[in-house]
Amino acid sequence: MLAVIFSHHESLSFFYGSRIVKSLGIGVLGFGTVGTGTVKLLLENSELMAQRTGVALNLVRICDKDLQTDRGVDLTGVELTDSVDKVLDGDDIDVVVELIGGYEPARSFVEQALKNGKHVVTANKALIALHGNDLLKTAAEAGVQLLFEASVAGAVPVVKALRESLAANRIEEIYGILNGTCNYILTQMRVNQAPFNEVLADAQKKGYAEADPTFDIDGIDTAHKLTILAAIAFGTPLAFDQVHVEGIRSITDVDILWANRMGYRIKLLGIARRTEDGLELRIHPTMVPENSMVASVEDVFNAVFVKGDYSGTTMYHGRGAGEKPTAGAVVADLIDLARDAKSKSKGRVAGLSYLDKHLKEKPIRALNDVESQYYLRFSVEDRPGVLAEITAILRDQRISIKTVNQDGRSSTDSVPLVIMTHRAKEENIRASLAAIEKLDVVSEKPHLIRIENSLS
Amino acid sequence: MLAVIFSHHESLSFFYGSRIVKSLGIGVLGFGTVGTGTVKLLLENSELMAQRTGVALNLVRICDKDLQTDRGVDLTGVELTDSVDKVLDGDDIDVVVELIGGYEPARSFVEQALKNGKHVVTANKALIALHGNDLLKTAAEAGVQLLFEASVAGAVPVVKALRESLAANRIEEIYGILNGTCNYILTQMRVNQAPFNEVLADAQKKGYAEADPTFDIDGIDTAHKLTILAAIAFGTPLAFDQVHVEGIRSITDVDILWANRMGYRIKLLGIARRTEDGLELRIHPTMVPENSMVASVEDVFNAVFVKGDYSGTTMYHGRGAGEKPTAGAVVADLIDLARDAKSKSKGRVAGLSYLDKHLKEKPIRALNDVESQYYLRFSVEDRPGVLAEITAILRDQRISIKTVNQDGRSSTDSVPLVIMTHRAKEENIRASLAAIEKLDVVSEKPHLIRIENSLS
Repeated sequence: MLAVIFSHHESLSFFYGSRIVKSLGIGVLGFGTVGTGTVKLLLENSELMAQRTGVALNLVRICDKDLQTDRGVDLTGVELTDSVDKVLDGDDIDVVVELIGGYEPARSFVEQALKNGKHVVTANKALIALHGNDLLKTAAEAGVQLLFEASVAGAVPVVKALRESLAANRIEEIYGILNGTCNYILTQMRVNQAPFNEVLADAQKKGYAEADPTFDIDGIDTAHKLTILAAIAFGTPLAFDQVHVEGIRSITDVDILWANRMGYRIKLLGIARRTEDGLELRIHPTMVPENSMVASVEDVFNAVFVKGDYSGTTMYHGRGAGEKPTAGAVVADLIDLARDAKSKSKGRVAGLSYLDKHLKEKPIRALNDVESQYYLRFSVEDRPGVLAEITAILRDQRISIKTVNQDGRSSTDSVPLVIMTHRAKEENIRASLAAIEKLDVVSEKPHLIRIENSLS
Repeated sequence: MLAVIFSHHESLSFFYGSRIVKSLGIGVLGFGTVGTGTVKLLLENSELMAQRTGVALNLVRICDKDLQTDRGVDLTGVELTDSVDKVLDGDDIDVVVELIGGYEPARSFVEQALKNGKHVVTANKALIALHGNDLLKTAAEAGVQLLFEASVAGAVPVVKALRESLAANRIEEIYGILNGTCNYILTQMRVNQAPFNEVLADAQKKGYAEADPTFDIDGIDTAHKLTILAAIAFGTPLAFDQVHVEGIRSITDVDILWANRMGYRIKLLGIARRTEDGLELRIHPTMVPENSMVASVEDVFNAVFVKGDYSGTTMYHGRGAGEKPTAGAVVADLIDLARDAKSKSKGRVAGLSYLDKHLKEKPIRALNDVESQYYLRFSVEDRPGVLAEITAILRDQRISIKTVNQDGRSSTDSVPLVIMTHRAKEENIRASLAAIEKLDVVSEKPHLIRIENSLS
């Protein structure tokens, strides 16, 4: 399947490798949004990519159940089929591009393709986060590659950055905004001073949130992505089930106003941190200083920050989703495979090739052991002595208070009491909140948001 | 020089490639700041890198004229020599790392190393920008690689991002803050409301600016870097002599105050833009909206923004200089070479393998033909009629005015007159300023700063 022909660009002959053009046979599974973008890109920029790589990326076949819908693409010379085997096992296919999404049948198809000796490129974060350990093993045994740049942060090339550009570094910390839907919702809540449900409905109308938004707003999508980044960066197996996950449903416009007032913004962050006591892996709404770079990442954009022992913190920013940006990342992986084919390279960059000895002996840290600063908001009766009761409980849990604010009056019986703590252990905070919630003077479940003051 | 041994990490055996460890012999030229960082990194993180890549990065030899200074590194097992040939032509050297800087003797050494069949990794932007076309040709003819990730923006891995992650895209635009010294000076001028010379002296004291700061503050260093990025992104030869270069010497604290007042920040930007009429390549102080991402890049940090037709705008941010960040980028290139060696890959990613046909037929655009918005500041006599004289000249050059401001009173005879224009052609602006400067009522050379309103 690697026919050797010659390009017409004689002028380039002194840059080696450019004259000989090979061909890589590509089969696409799934002709939805990202599938359509990928097909368009492969057809539109084919000459440019052949010039850059010395290889023709040859889209051979697309498989989808729906053969009727007009995707607005001229498919002359490309076969559209509903037979998945013609992609998974076609003699003319070198690479299977899985763009179906979800767990099944995507997992079975990918497994079959790998066993058939096809490379696989996927944008499927759920698949890699949950089944990546097994699938990467299958790929290694079959002597093929399983690539997934598009699975994390769309157009933002952070998988390659971690595996290659930062490979000289011991990674200390990764954090980022990995879900555009949540970031859009939080941005709009702040800018328009609007409540969560209203903004969510608007996001659904605009196509920024799905009809069932659970995966996004409950933090699961972010956890899939952090799982993948952490495994690559820290040399650990993919460990989705050990990530602490909180989404943004509990964030109210009141919290956003308080954050603004105190010089913070609320972002849904994924945080992975290598500590003496093991790896922290957590997704939760986080208050970050309003003049930090991470606070300036707004709307549907994604950004990933990586702190290495030599490179310091580098940051990668761009569109985390969408037809074209995701297609760009999918095809970047295809270009890597094309260059491997041209240069006869095999197994150049391993899927998860590194095991951190320190972390191998340390379990992933329970959230209860993690230290942070906290924003706590209580609804309390507006009468003397309330603060004394609450602060006594915090004192008993050895939690040191940084600021107290109860000047927000209200027309109802209860008023807000906002406390910011110094660094404290999650376990002690949770014990305090459980005790405070039981007080007669407290009228609703306390609100907690973790604060990270030292992010870039 | 590629001895095959076995690693001890049996547990990794299912990720192919990880068990067989080869060795790459490395010789370093130049044991200054970056050289010391690179040596430290190669020694400190050697095991981690071997695990990640399946290859031992073996630092064999360091060459420097100064064999006496203690760099605080334990060089057990590493040869320190003042004989350059032992690096350029050592049988045990696979890669020469050039960290001398400047044009000569760096150019001759690199050329000789390539002709001797050694790969070369360099952090030398001046060398690549001016001699890269020839040196890449020499490398191609010798069948070796010349890599230079560290030459642009230090730890920020934008060379790889352009060549690999964004290789599916037609690049429309690159812009960025590529010189930490200038960005530090402009940031400090704004934050401390201090004049240029005072801040420069402070930057020199802190080691952020060289004793002779010409290359930095006159924009030449930024031009070297933009030359390299543009050639890779747009498929053109390196064309340093065709970049329009202005530095920051002419920026006064008065301009910075006016920028603040109008909602802008002043940044030294490198801008490369692909247009119907050819390529724009320019370095100059630029006003950018204060709430843009590019405005939020402060102090010594670098950031590069790349707009591709599919990926949209992605941004890369980090430390642009320094011992450790630059070393991280140098060693990233070594890791690429190590992985090539392990996977028996040859010529995987060409140096400059792509020629844009459209741009081949179009010359690089003269600045006179470029359109922009402009901030113009004049020192004028404080009397009626002055504005009429100046606006008449602008009208005659078909320049449309957006705002006029002359409310800044002064104790001297002259007062500032600040005009912001709508989009206009540079040629017409220049003709206007030449005419305005001759007016009796104008007391000093007009100040001009270009405005870019549509950057991310």
